[in-house]
Amino acid sequence: MNKTRVLTGITTTGTPHLGNYVGAIRPAITASRDPQVQSYYFLADFHALIKCHEPDRVAESRREIAATWLALGLDTDNAIFYRQSDVPEIPELTWLLTCVAAKGLMNRAHAYKAAVQENLDAGDRDPDAGITMGLYSYPILMAADILIFSQKQVAGREFGTTQVPVGRDQIQHIEMARDIGQRFNHIFGEEFFALPEAVVDEQVAVLNGLDGRKMSKSYNNTIPLFEPEKKFRKLINKIKTNSLEPGEPKDTEGCTLFQIYTAFASAAEVAEMRERYAAGIGWGEMKGVLFDYLNEQLRAPREEYQRLLADPAYVEAVLRKGAEKARAEATPFLDRLKRAVGLGHFI
Amino acid sequence: MNKTRVLTGITTTGTPHLGNYVGAIRPAITASRDPQVQSYYFLADFHALIKCHEPDRVAESRREIAATWLALGLDTDNAIFYRQSDVPEIPELTWLLTCVAAKGLMNRAHAYKAAVQENLDAGDRDPDAGITMGLYSYPILMAADILIFSQKQVAGREFGTTQVPVGRDQIQHIEMARDIGQRFNHIFGEEFFALPEAVVDEQVAVLNGLDGRKMSKSYNNTIPLFEPEKKFRKLINKIKTNSLEPGEPKDTEGCTLFQIYTAFASAAEVAEMRERYAAGIGWGEMKGVLFDYLNEQLRAPREEYQRLLADPAYVEAVLRKGAEKARAEATPFLDRLKRAVGLGHFI
Repeated sequence: MNKTRVLTGITTTGTPHLGNYVGAIRPAITASRDPQVQSYYFLADFHALIKCHEPDRVAESRREIAATWLALGLDTDNAIFYRQSDVPEIPELTWLLTCVAAKGLMNRAHAYKAAVQENLDAGDRDPDAGITMGLYSYPILMAADILIFSQKQVAGREFGTTQVPVGRDQIQHIEMARDIGQRFNHIFGEEFFALPEAVVDEQVAVLNGLDGRKMSKSYNNTIPLFEPEKKFRKLINKIKTNSLEPGEPKDTEGCTLFQIYTAFASAAEVAEMRERYAAGIGWGEMKGVLFDYLNEQLRAPREEYQRLLADPAYVEAVLRKGAEKARAEATPFLDRLKRAVGLGHFI
Repeated sequence: MNKTRVLTGITTTGTPHLGNYVGAIRPAITASRDPQVQSYYFLADFHALIKCHEPDRVAESRREIAATWLALGLDTDNAIFYRQSDVPEIPELTWLLTCVAAKGLMNRAHAYKAAVQENLDAGDRDPDAGITMGLYSYPILMAADILIFSQKQVAGREFGTTQVPVGRDQIQHIEMARDIGQRFNHIFGEEFFALPEAVVDEQVAVLNGLDGRKMSKSYNNTIPLFEPEKKFRKLINKIKTNSLEPGEPKDTEGCTLFQIYTAFASAAEVAEMRERYAAGIGWGEMKGVLFDYLNEQLRAPREEYQRLLADPAYVEAVLRKGAEKARAEATPFLDRLKRAVGLGHFI
C-alpha cells in the first residue's frame, strides 16, 4: 500500500502563539501520530533569513519552536522533525531546480508582485527597490523542500503524492513546485519526482488577538502560547471586549474571549458558556474563566517547554536524529538526481 | 606573511582545445606550482547545468577536463583541485548570499541583459522568455564559489585577498561578488569575507581556430588538445590559409598556422619561422612542421590523458582528496557563517 507523505515547514522568525497552536501546531501534532502517514516537520530556518536579518531573533525562534513542538508531544519516532539548515541536500537540490525553473514563473509569484506594486505605488522608485533575491527566488527553495521528499520509491517502499497542508495564499507555491518538478522530470526524462499536492483545510481554526483582529505577529497582538502564568493572565485580561456591564446579555458572535474558549473547550462546555453569555456573564469573570481553563491545559506542556529551553543539548540531539532520518532519504535521492543531470561520481 | 589565494573555475560543458590550453590551462598549471600561492581549481559543474541539459555531455566534459589538467601536470599537492558539486557548502552559502543580494544587482548582469535584449529584438516575446533562473542568478553562485574561500584567517594562517583571473567580460561578476560579500559583512557586522579581486591578464594568449576566427566551442572551429594523432593531423591540415603558392613570400600576420606555432615555440624558433615565411614556405610544408612540433610536445601528456580516461577510479580519488582539502576550509567557515546569521547549533 502506498504510504502518504505530509510535509510542513515552520518559519523560524516568531514565538509560537495561541493562534499558531490552534490553527497549525495542534492538528499537526495529532497527525504526527498517524502510522499510515510519513510526516515531515521542519524548522524552515533558511526561509527565515529572507525576512529576518536579526540573528538572535532567528536563533531564539528556532529554539522556541523546537521546544514548543516537543513539549506538546510531537511523535518524533513516527514523524521526521528536523532543521532545514541541517539538510545540505536542500540547497543542493535548490540549485539543480534553479537551472530548470523559468524566470517568468518567479515573476508571477504573489509576494514578489506585491513588493513591486508597493514600489510602483511609491512613484519614484525602481520596481525592484529593496527586493532581495531571497524574496524573489524562495519558491525554488520551497520546491526543493518538498521535492527532496517526493521520490516515488524509497528502499522498496512505495510512496504516494507528498501532501502539503497550506493556507489559500500558499497554493501558488505548491503549483510552482509542481511546475518545476514536472519540468525537471521532462528535461531529464524520468519520473524522479511525484508531484506534490496542496491540501487546503477550509475548516482551519483562526483566532483573533488582543485587539480583535486576526492574531498575528505582524499586528503585534499575539498571546504567546507558553507565556509564564502571571504574564499569561495579564494578556488574557488585556483582550478587547465591548463595554457591556455584568448582567447584560452578551453576544458570543465576534467575541474574542468566546472564540478562544471555543477553540479549546468541548462542545458541551461551549454550549454551557453560550448560556452564561445569554445570562450576562461579566467580562472580568469570563476572563478569569478563560485564563483558568487555558492555564489548566497549558500548565504541563509549559513546564516541559521551560525544561526543554533549559536543556538545549537534548533538543539538539532530537533535531540531529531527525536530520539523520531526513538525510537517510535525501542523500541517496540527491545522488540519483546528480547522476541524472550529469554530476555523478566517475565510478 | 599573507599567503595569496588564486581561484579558477572551469565550466564543464566542452572538451579542452588548443585555445583553452594556451590561454588558460598552461598558465594555471604553472601557477599551481608556486608555493607562495594557495591555488583553487575547480570543475564548475553546477555552472555547467545552466547552459547544458545534456547529462552525457556534462559528465564527459568533467572527465575530460579533469584528465587534461592532471595529464598536464597540475600540482595537486600544492593546489586544491575539486569538483564544485562535491562541496555542498557552496550551494549552502549560495542561499545565505541570496538572502542579502539585491535583485536590482542581478538585473544589471551582462549575460541576463543580453538575453532580454534578444527577446526584445524579436519583438513579440516576453522579455524573460526562455530565461531560466540559473542564467539569472548565477552571479550569486559565483560569489559563493569565491567567498567560501575568502575567509581572512584559517587555522592561524593569514590570507590576503582572493584573486580571480578573469577575462574582461567577467570583471562584472567579481564586482558583484564583492558587492554581495560586502553587504553580508555589513549586515552581520563583521569582516567575514576578504573581498576578492579580479586579475585581468591583458597578455593572455588567444588562438584562432580552423576557420581563422577565435577558437571557440561556439564557432565549432576548435582543435581538441588531445585528439588522437591521426585526427590531430587531419585537423591541422584543415586550418584555413590563403591561396599563395609555395615559393611566394607569406605574411605571418593574421596567419593561424603561424599564430599557433608561436604559442608553443621558443623565441628563436619563432624568428627562424618568420624567415621561412619570407622565403615562401608552402602551406602543406608548414602544416607538416606545425603538426610535428605540436605532436612532439603533446605526445606524452596525451598518452597520460588516455591512461587517465581509462582509469576513472584514480581520477575520482584525486578529486575526492581535493574536495576533502576544500571542505577542510569550507565546512568550519560555513559553520561560522551559519552561526552569524542565526542558524548555529543549539549547543
